[in-house]
Amino acid sequence: MLPDLTDLNTFRDALTNARGPDELAVQGATERNGQLTKPPGALGRLEDLAIWYAGWRGDARPQITAPQVIVFAGNHGVTAQGVSAFPPEVTVQMVMNFEHGGAAINQLAKSAGAKMNVHALDLDRPTSDFTQGPAMSEDELLIALRAGWQAVDPQSDLLVVGEMGIGNTTPAAAIACALFGGEAADWTGRGTGVDDAGLANKTRVVAEGVALHTSDDGLEILRCLGGREIAAMAGAIAAARVLRIPVILDGFICSAAAACLARMSPGALDHAVAGHQSAEGAHGAVLTKLGKEPLLNLGLRLGEGSGGALAINILKSAVACHSGMATFAEAGVSDS
Amino acid sequence: MLPDLTDLNTFRDALTNARGPDELAVQGATERNGQLTKPPGALGRLEDLAIWYAGWRGDARPQITAPQVIVFAGNHGVTAQGVSAFPPEVTVQMVMNFEHGGAAINQLAKSAGAKMNVHALDLDRPTSDFTQGPAMSEDELLIALRAGWQAVDPQSDLLVVGEMGIGNTTPAAAIACALFGGEAADWTGRGTGVDDAGLANKTRVVAEGVALHTSDDGLEILRCLGGREIAAMAGAIAAARVLRIPVILDGFICSAAAACLARMSPGALDHAVAGHQSAEGAHGAVLTKLGKEPLLNLGLRLGEGSGGALAINILKSAVACHSGMATFAEAGVSDS
Repeated sequence: MLPDLTDLNTFRDALTNARGPDELAVQGATERNGQLTKPPGALGRLEDLAIWYAGWRGDARPQITAPQVIVFAGNHGVTAQGVSAFPPEVTVQMVMNFEHGGAAINQLAKSAGAKMNVHALDLDRPTSDFTQGPAMSEDELLIALRAGWQAVDPQSDLLVVGEMGIGNTTPAAAIACALFGGEAADWTGRGTGVDDAGLANKTRVVAEGVALHTSDDGLEILRCLGGREIAAMAGAIAAARVLRIPVILDGFICSAAAACLARMSPGALDHAVAGHQSAEGAHGAVLTKLGKEPLLNLGLRLGEGSGGALAINILKSAVACHSGMATFAEAGVSDS
Repeated sequence: MLPDLTDLNTFRDALTNARGPDELAVQGATERNGQLTKPPGALGRLEDLAIWYAGWRGDARPQITAPQVIVFAGNHGVTAQGVSAFPPEVTVQMVMNFEHGGAAINQLAKSAGAKMNVHALDLDRPTSDFTQGPAMSEDELLIALRAGWQAVDPQSDLLVVGEMGIGNTTPAAAIACALFGGEAADWTGRGTGVDDAGLANKTRVVAEGVALHTSDDGLEILRCLGGREIAAMAGAIAAARVLRIPVILDGFICSAAAACLARMSPGALDHAVAGHQSAEGAHGAVLTKLGKEPLLNLGLRLGEGSGGALAINILKSAVACHSGMATFAEAGVSDS
């Protein structure tokens, strides 16, 4: 089902040519939804979610039994510019924490009944500082995309991708600014908590990067301004698109990765919903640009896939109602 | 722990004298929260929820293992005024549906790992039409409060109460209007879906009821304008307050029941959070009056406890992060 990623054009072609949802399943799910024992529309967004999920799974009465959470980690040359409140060593320390089950995402994946995988991407070889040149070569981009592409379990029925990478709100802001225009300050936030001087410095760094790397192409923006974990997220979201595995997007960095795909192909994110609107300043604006209304808005700003994983149980509940409820006829309930 | 409800004064006294949260547990949970492997505040409202829950359970590192969902059903004399799009028979039909596992709340309780109980309250004996006189006598109110009071499992560690009762957005609107003032139209919505003429009629009915029954007392407003399932919800929420079992409030009708308790005793709802803001028009205004910010806003307007049950997994996830994550010291992660 998933072609080998031998070069970047294979990636472009696979994303552009991926099938859409199964319209017959959408139709069947819509009919079923109208027969369930509730007033029309009374389950609100849960109804839309269930029908959307049914379409992508090609099953008018689907179940969610195998969600996968994948966390990608990468290090960033741009941290040399002093953009983060935490030192780069924390990336590898947090990868150990993920592997030992101690991080928030471990608990959230477990609470959602999801399996979790962690991929550390060349942590001892940070990307290049994008104020000096492209963050990655074409080969480096391909390898990172492929890491994400191959990390998706084709047997999973729901995907959340998350990230860890000290400094990575800076490349995410630069990607958003390069894709959507406006000023660097519009897209630059405090990340894990830089102070006012730190925010001013970070904004300068984003502006310099965006000025240096101008492109209309999502993949080229990802290469020049992104990072390995950001590219791997894009690779995984694209693989899920090809495999018709629905995706719940996480926060700001995940959405920046996803936005590169949307630039490459307009329907690239039709299989994705936004799980949670991050407290990281510009995330709401990115979601608006992507036309995605978040399921949750609880003030998280952690990354790791935390907001996406927190929303898994919402989608599971939606699908459980859709597929498990009785119809008016089955229950002998008057429907008007 | 829970006194017998021999009369209404016992209820008043138990509610007014109920203990607050365990401040030592709050302090311990706050300290633990500051040591977990995440930037300060990065889990947003999940952090506040976990600390709040810890306080009520008297355990700085709690778990949620036994949530209970209780659905109360009642019938309303005021349906004689033509306030609902559905006939009153649907109440008993839906109770059968709950008992056979076919309703939305069955699926949502199951998805949340909660046990579910259903209590049908004198369905063949509707309350009196409140445009003609009080909905319930003092004895009827006491019996309904007691049904809720006794329905709470003292071994549960989280409570959601829901309702089924054709026509019951009308008494809920009347209660809100009597408690909070303003015009009947401010509090009256479309319920399961009345048309414009239906809404005008419903607004008239609410206005007549509120004009007939004026009181400053939450219990008297509940008696005159409420219904059996609404009183039972109030009884259960009050019992949970005495038992220090945290509550997730459901939608408009549940919040109207809760608001009667808040009028009786200012701290009566300190053990409760709002699960979901209903699409039923005035629910947002009731939550604002109660000072509760909803965890979810997904357009549900079903009742049954659906919005509260949907939020159980959010609270479970919050507590799982709090109690399951590693500290910086345990994980060997640099905390600055």
